[in-house]
Amino acid sequence: MNLKENEQGGDNVINMYDKINFDNKIYDLLTIGELLIDMISNEFSEKFSCNSYIRKFGGSPSNIAINAKKLGVNSLPISCVGNDGFGDFLISSLEKENVDTSQIIRSKSPTSMVVLTRSKETPIPIFYRGADYQIKYTPTLDEKIKNSKIVHFSSWPISKKQSREVIERVIKTAKESSTLIGFDPNYHKDLWEEENGTSLMKSMIKYTDFIKPSEDDAERLFGKDNPENQIKKFFDLGAKLVVMTLGKDGVIVSDGVNSEKFDTLATNVVDVTGAGDAFWAGFYVGLIKGRNVIDSVKVGLAASAFKLRYVGAISPMPRYEELIKEFII
Amino acid sequence: MNLKENEQGGDNVINMYDKINFDNKIYDLLTIGELLIDMISNEFSEKFSCNSYIRKFGGSPSNIAINAKKLGVNSLPISCVGNDGFGDFLISSLEKENVDTSQIIRSKSPTSMVVLTRSKETPIPIFYRGADYQIKYTPTLDEKIKNSKIVHFSSWPISKKQSREVIERVIKTAKESSTLIGFDPNYHKDLWEEENGTSLMKSMIKYTDFIKPSEDDAERLFGKDNPENQIKKFFDLGAKLVVMTLGKDGVIVSDGVNSEKFDTLATNVVDVTGAGDAFWAGFYVGLIKGRNVIDSVKVGLAASAFKLRYVGAISPMPRYEELIKEFII
Repeated sequence: MNLKENEQGGDNVINMYDKINFDNKIYDLLTIGELLIDMISNEFSEKFSCNSYIRKFGGSPSNIAINAKKLGVNSLPISCVGNDGFGDFLISSLEKENVDTSQIIRSKSPTSMVVLTRSKETPIPIFYRGADYQIKYTPTLDEKIKNSKIVHFSSWPISKKQSREVIERVIKTAKESSTLIGFDPNYHKDLWEEENGTSLMKSMIKYTDFIKPSEDDAERLFGKDNPENQIKKFFDLGAKLVVMTLGKDGVIVSDGVNSEKFDTLATNVVDVTGAGDAFWAGFYVGLIKGRNVIDSVKVGLAASAFKLRYVGAISPMPRYEELIKEFII
Repeated sequence: MNLKENEQGGDNVINMYDKINFDNKIYDLLTIGELLIDMISNEFSEKFSCNSYIRKFGGSPSNIAINAKKLGVNSLPISCVGNDGFGDFLISSLEKENVDTSQIIRSKSPTSMVVLTRSKETPIPIFYRGADYQIKYTPTLDEKIKNSKIVHFSSWPISKKQSREVIERVIKTAKESSTLIGFDPNYHKDLWEEENGTSLMKSMIKYTDFIKPSEDDAERLFGKDNPENQIKKFFDLGAKLVVMTLGKDGVIVSDGVNSEKFDTLATNVVDVTGAGDAFWAGFYVGLIKGRNVIDSVKVGLAASAFKLRYVGAISPMPRYEELIKEFII
């Protein structure tokens, strides 16, 4: 990272029993990162023996933007797709969900794609990186960051030099503008050209305000350990708030001083695809609606529980007010 | 091209009524170029609206190698695939056809892919270039070229600098070893990063012994014109033998002095996929079996007519002796 030490924002300590003060910002949530095709096998198979695939809308940051929009805040995805039929499909999918697509740019590279064979063992994805990392730092993006409550990014844009430089400028501007930063530490080694991907990922953590690792994410960064120790490792790297998701075992939230564990609110699990994105969206919307951190974690759990009833990454999501009424949170 | 003028091989004029003298070579046919996944939509649709895709074996040079092997000569594809499930699938597909896969190398880039939506209008492919151009000039390849009768390459490896440099060395070695060169001028602008793709393609033609453009290939290089004029343009660029395929209207073969037109031998057209590759294979096998050029064109037409009866790029193909018996050529 080319950021100076005084841009680490070490002063804005987060207390998980406090509400976040968002100043007077006109936009709610920016999400930066991959918008891509998930090409998923129809059949379960080992060793890529299946012939038939379904093309799906994919990309965690855009899924977060869609969920946040449905819950009732304004969200804006920052992404790049190819000038091709897949790019058209992704943009029209966002438009159907009434998400603002004005900041999705086009590249002559093909729309990025992940091919995934469903497998009883761990599926091994094949990553086709094309347009996703051709994002640019524009005057418009600069203005959006300055006037947003939260900017969120995933690990995809930091895995390529070109987009990592954009993210570094995003962080700098966000710090100068008191825009809070959420970071999804979803490390996958095949995304990285560099050998030191985990070191680069770790070096980002101190610039972020919220980090939401899953157990798998933590294991890829630090090796196997229990959740409490993993959380400590994130704080050792400068994290301010860690929400560690444990799947069916709920979440642990910690601000480095206190920590609390919450059970899942899910009672009916149909498909886990996109559950993490629904959690992120609910958590951010909780904060933006004026809840404190731990109450926002509950909104995240409710959004995730709602999503789990439906198949697919893009699925129904009620407005915030209906969600908290249904889950009595 | 970094080849010297005296490597143009202007001395080995081809007369289409003569047999080719192959010297005393131990291998028959090397094919160099793309080995990839064709991801083809199930439904016909405009604007990439279809969701369902079928994964197919693809890559013209490897299809030529498969057909030539079935006809009864030894063929060797030189390609690169990813170290992934698609790479495994492609290699095992070649092995099922008893093709030597010893010269297919692996790259950490993903196996290249072309996504194609079937369309009533001209389908617009999306090209995912990954491993295909990571080929290398090795001592083994050097030995294979020196001891082969024919080396064939497509336009894919010359569309990227890395693989173009390999092809330049292949041409140099082939010229020094009297190995004949076949070139498939299947230009597609989206394969090229450089603006001057057509100029680079045209500059290759003088180094080749056989070139087989389709009408579309010629139009992409020179603009629209009648076949006779297009053929003249290839000779103006230094071609030695041009076989121009006209689809259902057969082929025109010319050595720059004489030219002849042949009708198609196809009577039952089920699927045109791979018909051009079957033609190439039949043509090369005819030459290798000791026929003169125009009689080898007839073998190409017979192989193509046989292929047209079956669906798919990989389809049945009899041995040479049975083929010429059935088509009485």
